[in-house]
Amino acid sequence: MSTRILELRRDILNQNDETARALRARFRAADVLALNLVSSPGTGKTAFLEKTLRELVERGVPVAALVGDLETDNDARRLAASGAPVRQINTHGRCHLEAAWVESHLDGWSLSDLDYLFVENVGNLVCPSSYDLGEAVRVVLLSVTEGEDKPLKYPGMFNSSDVAVITKWDLAGPCEFDEAAARANIEAVRPGLRVLATSAKTGFGMDEWLAFLAERRRLGPDFLSAAARSSEPM
Amino acid sequence: MSTRILELRRDILNQNDETARALRARFRAADVLALNLVSSPGTGKTAFLEKTLRELVERGVPVAALVGDLETDNDARRLAASGAPVRQINTHGRCHLEAAWVESHLDGWSLSDLDYLFVENVGNLVCPSSYDLGEAVRVVLLSVTEGEDKPLKYPGMFNSSDVAVITKWDLAGPCEFDEAAARANIEAVRPGLRVLATSAKTGFGMDEWLAFLAERRRLGPDFLSAAARSSEPM
Repeated sequence: MSTRILELRRDILNQNDETARALRARFRAADVLALNLVSSPGTGKTAFLEKTLRELVERGVPVAALVGDLETDNDARRLAASGAPVRQINTHGRCHLEAAWVESHLDGWSLSDLDYLFVENVGNLVCPSSYDLGEAVRVVLLSVTEGEDKPLKYPGMFNSSDVAVITKWDLAGPCEFDEAAARANIEAVRPGLRVLATSAKTGFGMDEWLAFLAERRRLGPDFLSAAARSSEPM
Repeated sequence: MSTRILELRRDILNQNDETARALRARFRAADVLALNLVSSPGTGKTAFLEKTLRELVERGVPVAALVGDLETDNDARRLAASGAPVRQINTHGRCHLEAAWVESHLDGWSLSDLDYLFVENVGNLVCPSSYDLGEAVRVVLLSVTEGEDKPLKYPGMFNSSDVAVITKWDLAGPCEFDEAAARANIEAVRPGLRVLATSAKTGFGMDEWLAFLAERRRLGPDFLSAAARSSEPM
């Protein structure tokens, strides 16, 4: 890449980091746990988030979600059926969410009334890894249908995440999913990363996921996420 | 996006288009059909390409492949087992292939001895759509595990492709894949796009795919691809 491109890219990322830090301070002041869900297209982020929202709403936990896509508001409509407030962010061709778009879509929401704010990123295992959204927890999802090698091929995304969620567990058999290999590959690129296996369809693993969420909320805002660490000014 | 970013992006794309046009002329002079395979991570591009190379090598058809990944040369090693010449392009964090990288990886290959040159792009349904690689045919792959809505959410990729290949057909049952919905969604964003259903595992649909390849080679270089059309200078 030319120097000009590298400089411009650094400017954009610095600007995004600044907005992300302001968002993080705002989430912290409001005592809301913000989570950024990242994965390939088709990993099942929306089904997983839909199940999560339903479970939380059922328990009376106040929760909201933003959902990013290049086009369509299919996902926002689908998620809103959970009863939680949901807003769509359309990127119109852009391959990731940026902190400023998250910020502009929070207007009118009272963050301090929420326990959790989920942000579903654009389906893309590359570009969203560079954009901190002010989240406390970055969640990388990996489906059993995608192949066990994805952590090795997309190390940036796994490296910048705070927990890995394996999705579509109900299909592990038909897909001949090699769990040990997948876990070893995650461990190779991000030693110690917590890994949860789930199925939004059967509900498998959702209790462990909900317990993880409650635990992370209890840990409070001083338990810094990987994204927060990397976007601190040098 | 700021004017500066838009201008820079246009410069990069113009430069890429220029290299792509030179590559296209070179492929045409060598009478080799170049194909650019694009999809999400985990759609099964490598398994599909591996099966394709094996079938062609078995029939004595001269073929070679370039394979793009952020990191690892797993795919090149896997594909080389077919007996075809294969080279890995590592993008080291970049989210797409560019024409210049294709060009620099052709050194020492005699293109005129080849019938087909396959280029497997980085797994990403967004960014690679903007980068013409000089291909005659852009192949977008969509697996039955990803959900039928992907064409609507990633219209840029489907719009710039010349054929859509549905992969992992053997999993259509367990995934409750709705073929009619997927085809309708493809038709909605790219009317008339040819759609083939395949399974690299069972071999289903591979004969139709190989017939498509032979047919496109017979049509010759004047049958312009969507990428060629879009990168012609205004």
